[in-house]
Amino acid sequence: MKVVITGGTGFIGRMLARRILELGQLTGPAGGREPVDEIVLFDAVEPPGPLPGLDHRARVVVGDISERARVFDLIDRDDIAVFHLASVVSGGGELDFDLALRVNLTGGLNVLEALRARGGAPRLVFASSVAVFGGAAMPTVVGDTTKRTPQTTYGATKAIGELLINDYTRKGFLDGRAARLPTIVVRPGRPNLAASSFASGVVREPLNGEPCVLPVPVETRMPVLGYRSAVEGFVRLHEVPGAALGDDRAINFPSLSVTVAEMIAALRRVADGRALGPITAAPDPAIEAIVATWPTESEFARAAALGLPIEANPDQIVRAYIEDFVDESH
Amino acid sequence: MKVVITGGTGFIGRMLARRILELGQLTGPAGGREPVDEIVLFDAVEPPGPLPGLDHRARVVVGDISERARVFDLIDRDDIAVFHLASVVSGGGELDFDLALRVNLTGGLNVLEALRARGGAPRLVFASSVAVFGGAAMPTVVGDTTKRTPQTTYGATKAIGELLINDYTRKGFLDGRAARLPTIVVRPGRPNLAASSFASGVVREPLNGEPCVLPVPVETRMPVLGYRSAVEGFVRLHEVPGAALGDDRAINFPSLSVTVAEMIAALRRVADGRALGPITAAPDPAIEAIVATWPTESEFARAAALGLPIEANPDQIVRAYIEDFVDESH
Repeated sequence: MKVVITGGTGFIGRMLARRILELGQLTGPAGGREPVDEIVLFDAVEPPGPLPGLDHRARVVVGDISERARVFDLIDRDDIAVFHLASVVSGGGELDFDLALRVNLTGGLNVLEALRARGGAPRLVFASSVAVFGGAAMPTVVGDTTKRTPQTTYGATKAIGELLINDYTRKGFLDGRAARLPTIVVRPGRPNLAASSFASGVVREPLNGEPCVLPVPVETRMPVLGYRSAVEGFVRLHEVPGAALGDDRAINFPSLSVTVAEMIAALRRVADGRALGPITAAPDPAIEAIVATWPTESEFARAAALGLPIEANPDQIVRAYIEDFVDESH
Repeated sequence: MKVVITGGTGFIGRMLARRILELGQLTGPAGGREPVDEIVLFDAVEPPGPLPGLDHRARVVVGDISERARVFDLIDRDDIAVFHLASVVSGGGELDFDLALRVNLTGGLNVLEALRARGGAPRLVFASSVAVFGGAAMPTVVGDTTKRTPQTTYGATKAIGELLINDYTRKGFLDGRAARLPTIVVRPGRPNLAASSFASGVVREPLNGEPCVLPVPVETRMPVLGYRSAVEGFVRLHEVPGAALGDDRAINFPSLSVTVAEMIAALRRVADGRALGPITAAPDPAIEAIVATWPTESEFARAAALGLPIEANPDQIVRAYIEDFVDESH
């Protein structure tokens, strides 16, 4: 079977591709496990260099997800599964509303329509976000039954994606699942336009011996999940039989509710003598305003029942990053 | 100022146009009350005959709401208010998914974009529906803070409309409000493709001396509101200052939770000696399946706080229909 990962050259997309190559098979539209002979990492721009850890089964395709024909060309086999991760992120969406609608809404509809056109209800896993929550009416702890009241265009388009996936699934056009992600840490590389970018930066930059400038107070609390659990969760959510998911296909992913100060404390414990770059505070009102609308704690009863993984504590999250990206590169 | 009512030649659209003509003014984008000198009733098809109760200020424009340029031509003044009622209805959406997306989603986006293009954040009132609720996780009583889990394409597109209106409002592109309507009764004329059509038919057909064939059991309970209250509610929701509505612009409209049997009992009490056509049962599984997903009772704390009107009992709803449409035509 073929696997398409939109936003595939991003960090999570690449890790997911590697994990699927390692597994070698997934459940196909016919219901049985099938070998994966082709993975396409679809993205808006060429990656800056070769992507490590991939093999002959994987290739990068560059294109604009808002072009219908492009997406239909991509989803060109009946034995297919799609992981739809492509998205304008939170901070980016606030800067360019039209781009957020074009990529997240039009692009998302293109993916849904292309899957529908295959027939046979192929499986789709969509990266949603706890940014679907927010605003004055948001409870202190959000969960699977909390009303979606997003306060960013990013969150609004993710909420719309969840609704469309439920309806396309109900109609039998596809077999969709939405992974409602908390902030995923620790992302390697450079900061991005996600308002939550600091949550990775506060661990990554010090470990790289670089300064980290924090745009929010250290008391800021947010639900986080390690990337290893996120990637494994994507795969497991894909494998769950549709009947086990019922009529609401959006699953609040597991998360730890931690403050930035607690992430820093975990970093200091785990770094164990390494020289760390300095962390300084420089409040950024635009970032603070977005982060303030997000939930600080997220329940995940359905994800727990499905056995989706989670780290035991923030130390484990930092340790995984050091193993995968710091020690790896030394 | 100009008023555009999309879906304007429908029953609620016509009543709303008459009410606005009667009032003569509405709050304009600048914040002050302005005389209404132009009302356009925009709809997909020509009405079968002249629309009574309108005057020189009102005219019908026929067009396809999914055509962007058509909608931009319509929303051609800065001093404007839009009541966006146009929609493929519940049963119709289940028959033609693509049409429902084209009219309800693309059409809705055209209205939002055309208003945004005016600048000055004009007011918009959108007809949403309690069909945004449904499914396995729906509580017995729904309300302003209940999660939207629609089980029809109609309900899904209404939920998406609510999310888009909140985001366009948050961005300052317009000043939106969503009126989340229960089943509106008693609609005159002929049955339509709304799965709730029987709720009007069970009063209307007997009073016309015609047989009513009920597609659902008489025990079926649903939230209903009289059309007089619905129309008045639309106007009042338009007039509320935006600041009073906060960051969630969807307001559960008032409703009475009544069974079909209770509507029939009200009809018998109010009909008071009139000869009534017979009511017979002929279950329609397609209608029953849709209606079964809807809430039976709907709370309306925010609407009550805003003073939106509601009838005291089902008798009052039946009496209004007799006054306006039965005695009127005799």
